Amino acid sequence: MTQKFNSRVYITLRPSVLDTAGTAVMSGLQQLGYQGVENVRIGKYIEVTLSAENQADADKQLDKMCDQLLANPVIENYAFELSPVEE
Amino acid sequence: MTQKFNSRVYITLRPSVLDTAGTAVMSGLQQLGYQGVENVRIGKYIEVTLSAENQADADKQLDKMCDQLLANPVIENYAFELSPVEE
Repeated sequence: MTQKFNSRVYITLRPSVLDTAGTAVMSGLQQLGYQGVENVRIGKYIEVTLSAENQADADKQLDKMCDQLLANPVIENYAFELSPVEE
Repeated sequence: MTQKFNSRVYITLRPSVLDTAGTAVMSGLQQLGYQGVENVRIGKYIEVTLSAENQADADKQLDKMCDQLLANPVIENYAFELSPVEE
Protein backbone atom coordinates (compact mmCIF):
# COMPACT_ATOMS: atom_id res chain seq x y z
CA MET A 1 0.00 0.00 0.00
CA THR A 2 1.28 3.43 -0.83
CA GLN A 3 0.77 6.60 1.09
CA LYS A 4 0.46 10.13 -0.23
CA PHE A 5 2.81 12.92 0.83
CA ASN A 6 2.94 16.68 0.37
CA SER A 7 6.36 18.22 0.23
CA ARG A 8 7.68 21.74 0.14
CA VAL A 9 11.09 22.14 -1.48
CA TYR A 10 13.16 25.31 -0.97
CA ILE A 11 15.95 25.94 -3.44
CA THR A 12 18.39 28.75 -2.75
CA LEU A 13 21.51 29.98 -4.49
CA ARG A 14 24.67 29.12 -2.58
CA PRO A 15 25.87 32.14 -0.59
CA SER A 16 29.02 32.44 -2.72
CA VAL A 17 26.98 32.80 -5.95
CA LEU A 18 26.09 36.33 -7.06
CA ASP A 19 22.30 36.83 -7.17
CA THR A 20 21.78 39.47 -9.86
CA ALA A 21 17.97 39.14 -9.84
CA GLY A 22 17.96 39.60 -6.07
CA THR A 23 20.11 42.71 -6.38
CA ALA A 24 17.73 44.12 -8.99
CA VAL A 25 14.71 43.47 -6.76
CA MET A 26 16.54 45.10 -3.85
CA SER A 27 17.13 48.29 -5.88
CA GLY A 28 13.51 48.21 -6.99
CA LEU A 29 12.29 48.03 -3.42
CA GLN A 30 14.64 50.83 -2.34
CA GLN A 31 13.41 53.01 -5.19
CA LEU A 32 9.84 52.35 -4.09
CA GLY A 33 10.80 53.87 -0.74
CA TYR A 34 11.69 50.82 1.33
CA GLN A 35 15.01 52.19 2.55
CA GLY A 36 15.30 49.54 5.25
CA VAL A 37 15.84 46.70 2.78
CA GLU A 38 19.41 45.46 3.10
CA ASN A 39 19.54 42.26 1.13
CA VAL A 40 17.34 40.17 -1.18
CA ARG A 41 18.06 36.62 -2.36
CA ILE A 42 15.70 34.89 -4.77
CA GLY A 43 15.16 31.16 -4.81
CA LYS A 44 12.52 28.66 -5.83
CA TYR A 45 9.71 27.11 -3.86
CA ILE A 46 8.33 23.86 -5.27
CA GLU A 47 5.37 21.86 -3.99
CA VAL A 48 5.51 18.18 -4.92
CA THR A 49 2.74 15.69 -4.23
CA LEU A 50 3.95 12.11 -4.42
CA SER A 51 2.96 8.66 -3.31
CA ALA A 52 5.49 6.34 -1.72
CA GLU A 53 5.72 3.28 0.50
CA ASN A 54 6.45 5.25 3.65
CA GLN A 55 7.99 8.49 4.85
CA ALA A 56 11.58 7.22 4.62
CA ASP A 57 11.03 6.15 1.01
CA ALA A 58 9.42 9.49 0.11
CA ASP A 59 12.31 11.31 1.75
CA LYS A 60 14.87 9.32 -0.22
CA GLN A 61 13.04 9.82 -3.55
CA LEU A 62 12.66 13.53 -3.00
CA ASP A 63 16.32 13.95 -2.15
CA LYS A 64 17.24 12.26 -5.43
CA MET A 65 14.74 14.37 -7.39
CA CYS A 66 16.28 17.56 -6.00
CA ASP A 67 19.76 16.39 -6.87
CA GLN A 68 18.86 15.20 -10.38
CA LEU A 69 16.33 17.72 -11.64
CA LEU A 70 14.88 20.28 -9.26
CA ALA A 71 18.09 21.95 -8.12
CA ASN A 72 21.48 22.54 -9.69
CA PRO A 73 23.80 21.29 -6.94
CA VAL A 74 26.76 23.20 -8.38
CA ILE A 75 25.28 26.59 -7.55
CA GLU A 76 22.20 25.83 -5.43
CA ASN A 77 21.37 24.39 -2.03
CA TYR A 78 18.08 22.67 -1.32
CA ALA A 79 16.01 21.71 1.67
CA PHE A 80 12.57 20.15 1.94
CA GLU A 81 9.78 19.34 4.35
CA LEU A 82 7.60 16.30 3.94
CA SER A 83 4.25 15.55 5.50
CA PRO A 84 1.75 12.74 4.97
CA VAL A 85 -1.61 13.79 3.47
CA GLU A 86 -4.54 13.13 5.82
CA GLU A 87 -7.19 11.23 3.94
CA MET B 1 16.62 52.60 17.13
CA THR B 2 15.99 50.11 14.36
CA GLN B 3 16.14 46.38 14.54
CA LYS B 4 17.17 43.95 11.83
CA PHE B 5 14.86 41.20 10.57
CA ASN B 6 15.21 38.17 8.34
CA SER B 7 12.16 37.20 6.36
CA ARG B 8 11.24 34.29 4.15
CA VAL B 9 8.60 35.03 1.54
CA TYR B 10 6.75 32.21 -0.25
CA ILE B 11 4.99 33.12 -3.48
CA THR B 12 2.71 30.55 -5.08
CA LEU B 13 0.43 30.59 -8.10
CA ARG B 14 -3.25 30.69 -7.14
CA PRO B 15 -4.74 27.19 -7.39
CA SER B 16 -6.98 28.25 -10.28
CA VAL B 17 -3.99 29.33 -12.40
CA LEU B 18 -2.48 26.74 -14.75
CA ASP B 19 1.16 26.02 -13.86
CA THR B 20 2.77 25.01 -17.16
CA ALA B 21 6.32 24.95 -15.75
CA GLY B 22 5.13 22.72 -12.91
CA THR B 23 3.50 20.34 -15.37
CA ALA B 24 6.71 20.18 -17.41
CA VAL B 25 8.77 19.39 -14.31
CA MET B 26 6.25 16.72 -13.33
CA SER B 27 6.64 14.98 -16.72
CA GLY B 28 10.40 15.28 -16.41
CA LEU B 29 10.36 13.58 -13.03
CA GLN B 30 8.05 10.83 -14.28
CA GLN B 31 10.34 10.22 -17.26
CA LEU B 32 13.27 9.93 -14.88
CA GLY B 33 11.40 7.08 -13.23
CA TYR B 34 9.63 8.82 -10.35
CA GLN B 35 6.23 7.30 -11.08
CA GLY B 36 4.84 8.31 -7.69
CA VAL B 37 4.89 12.04 -8.50
CA GLU B 38 1.31 13.26 -8.80
CA ASN B 39 1.56 17.02 -8.88
CA VAL B 40 4.19 19.76 -9.01
CA ARG B 41 3.61 23.48 -8.50
CA ILE B 42 6.44 25.96 -8.83
CA GLY B 43 6.64 29.17 -6.86
CA LYS B 44 9.24 31.60 -5.62
CA TYR B 45 11.11 31.76 -2.36
CA ILE B 46 12.58 35.14 -1.47
CA GLU B 47 14.77 36.00 1.50
CA VAL B 48 14.62 39.67 2.49
CA THR B 49 16.80 41.25 5.16
CA LEU B 50 15.40 44.55 6.35
CA SER B 51 15.69 46.93 9.25
CA ALA B 52 12.57 48.40 10.84
CA GLU B 53 11.38 50.00 14.07
CA ASN B 54 9.84 46.83 15.41
CA GLN B 55 8.28 43.56 14.33
CA ALA B 56 4.86 45.09 13.60
CA ASP B 57 6.45 47.71 11.37
CA ALA B 58 8.56 45.10 9.53
CA ASP B 59 5.44 42.98 9.04
CA LYS B 60 3.52 45.91 7.59
CA GLN B 61 6.36 46.93 5.24
CA LEU B 62 6.86 43.39 4.00
CA ASP B 63 3.18 42.93 3.29
CA LYS B 64 3.22 46.09 1.15
CA MET B 65 6.42 44.97 -0.65
CA CYS B 66 4.78 41.67 -1.58
CA ASP B 67 1.70 43.42 -2.84
CA GLN B 68 3.58 46.08 -4.82
CA LEU B 69 6.59 44.27 -6.24
CA LEU B 70 7.40 40.76 -5.09
CA ALA B 71 4.14 39.04 -6.02
CA ASN B 72 1.50 39.59 -8.67
CA PRO B 73 -1.69 39.54 -6.58
CA VAL B 74 -3.84 38.85 -9.64
CA ILE B 75 -2.40 35.37 -10.13
CA GLU B 76 -0.27 34.74 -7.04
CA ASN B 77 -0.70 34.24 -3.32
CA TYR B 78 2.00 35.12 -0.85
CA ALA B 79 2.90 34.30 2.71
CA PHE B 80 5.90 35.24 4.81
CA GLU B 81 7.68 34.52 8.06
CA LEU B 82 9.60 37.18 9.92
CA SER B 83 12.20 36.75 12.64
CA PRO B 84 14.48 39.26 14.38
CA VAL B 85 18.21 38.80 13.75
CA GLU B 86 20.15 38.00 16.92
CA GLU B 87 23.14 40.33 17.17
